[in-house]
Amino acid sequence: MNADQGEFAFIDWLRHRSTTDASVAVGIGDDCAVTLVPATTRQLLVTTDMLLEGSCFLLDEAGPRAVGRKAMAVNLSDIAAMAGVPRWAVVSVGLPRQRGRTIAEEIYLGLREMADAFGTLIVGGDTNSWDGPLTLSVTLIGESLPPGPCLRRGAKPGDWLLVTGTLGGSILGKHLTFTPRVREAQILQRHGPIHAMIDISDGLSKDVGHICQASGCGVILDAWRIPLSADAHRLAEQTGKSPVEHALTDGEDFELAFAVEPSIGQRLLEEQPLGEVRIAHIGEFIPAGFYLRDDTGVHPYEPRGYSHPLE
Amino acid sequence: MNADQGEFAFIDWLRHRSTTDASVAVGIGDDCAVTLVPATTRQLLVTTDMLLEGSCFLLDEAGPRAVGRKAMAVNLSDIAAMAGVPRWAVVSVGLPRQRGRTIAEEIYLGLREMADAFGTLIVGGDTNSWDGPLTLSVTLIGESLPPGPCLRRGAKPGDWLLVTGTLGGSILGKHLTFTPRVREAQILQRHGPIHAMIDISDGLSKDVGHICQASGCGVILDAWRIPLSADAHRLAEQTGKSPVEHALTDGEDFELAFAVEPSIGQRLLEEQPLGEVRIAHIGEFIPAGFYLRDDTGVHPYEPRGYSHPLE
Repeated sequence: MNADQGEFAFIDWLRHRSTTDASVAVGIGDDCAVTLVPATTRQLLVTTDMLLEGSCFLLDEAGPRAVGRKAMAVNLSDIAAMAGVPRWAVVSVGLPRQRGRTIAEEIYLGLREMADAFGTLIVGGDTNSWDGPLTLSVTLIGESLPPGPCLRRGAKPGDWLLVTGTLGGSILGKHLTFTPRVREAQILQRHGPIHAMIDISDGLSKDVGHICQASGCGVILDAWRIPLSADAHRLAEQTGKSPVEHALTDGEDFELAFAVEPSIGQRLLEEQPLGEVRIAHIGEFIPAGFYLRDDTGVHPYEPRGYSHPLE
Repeated sequence: MNADQGEFAFIDWLRHRSTTDASVAVGIGDDCAVTLVPATTRQLLVTTDMLLEGSCFLLDEAGPRAVGRKAMAVNLSDIAAMAGVPRWAVVSVGLPRQRGRTIAEEIYLGLREMADAFGTLIVGGDTNSWDGPLTLSVTLIGESLPPGPCLRRGAKPGDWLLVTGTLGGSILGKHLTFTPRVREAQILQRHGPIHAMIDISDGLSKDVGHICQASGCGVILDAWRIPLSADAHRLAEQTGKSPVEHALTDGEDFELAFAVEPSIGQRLLEEQPLGEVRIAHIGEFIPAGFYLRDDTGVHPYEPRGYSHPLE
């Protein structure tokens, strides 16, 4: 093959586009990246997410740049869920053989758009081509801020359940265009303490269920308080399900769900420190069980959302 | 779908198999892993490698456990190339829908076999299923040892080129069963200084070419000094190429190639501090060019090896 068209030519293309930063001793092009850890850093946050063509996105519909953007954004959202600061990313990609170089460049530009917006450096990766569909995996390393990372465990009976933004129907577009709540999470943590937090990727009910499971408690969700997106309404018209049901079960909202003491919750609702991203109070943690309260009463609810089937 | 058979059931299965370690504050099951960095650590090594079914392995032939083992081992080899200490790994996987759970468990056991052997902790991941072939991406974080990571750059004209082990024909088996040279690299570094080092993944000539390019120098390889594996001879009988040509161009030997001053090289050859893994002197770095010396003289040689084609 012509070396000018292969993997190494692309790596050269990447190296010329890399930003330099005092925290990166060795970037793209050696066997490992070498990053410099500040003396104050004791805890690293590490997360990884893989996107698969046909399952997480439709390449022809979304285009490779939006796919790159999403691949970085979903990882940033995981760092947001811990109220952390994203720092360094590595990217591995399995490219289709046809148009692979063009797709690779577009993906990189999408990755960089998101990375640059959140002060994150792409320090390395692995470029492959194959006969299969496009596959893309990003690993993101971050740092936690005092008083430490917000975990899923820590919600207490009596805590309020709050969420950011509006929910449901992300498949109509937001799953590709969302802004990870990195800054919002840091602001929330300063207004905390946050007892538990998660980003809504599997679906509101499923992810609140994850908090309950990790915290050893239950929850009552108030159906009428759940902030519904315009897309939840639009999708409901197509599916015949209710907008609330979409908000409860659609995945990939990438908003934050979190538990705080009522006094903290009350202050967050009044101050609304996230500006246009509204904070809503949608429920209360209880000792056990998962319930939905609507205008007919309180009903047991089985958390539903997306889960990858494995046979 | 039945929750007992899906992604979350598998994550539960994983959590019960996780080892605990003082360096892991939060392992599998939250939005990020939280790892604890020793106060003495200032530099992190980060590497990622993706394996793709049909391109990097044949699932039916290798079996999922060997694939998991290889996915961890190739990343360990990158840490070895920097003479680093592997610490924490995350794994993302795109599983076929059929037999996905069984394949996932076998992959994990293969990953763990390698991780355990090198004191590496699997702290998180992302489990997906799809209609495509098996895809597996591992990111490994390590620490460097004093006096710092061995880079590709740093070889000087006059330095000797040394390699560990025997080369060529890895497709006949070693590409799945190799032992990453993590311990050997640390021993070499104590006998150093090592001016430059790389692991042989793309092929001896290609990877020595990477050292030359990064170091701004050239090399003369002595064909008769290259240590040939039994598989290089076996494969040569099938292909009609010479065993030396296989050693020069076959990828995935996962041995180390490195540059040292002649006095250090001489000492390493005499002491052979790696025991059964023999160190061989196969060439010398020069100001520029890439040459192969054989019994007919010194000839320009175009480094060849595996490169992913991108159109």
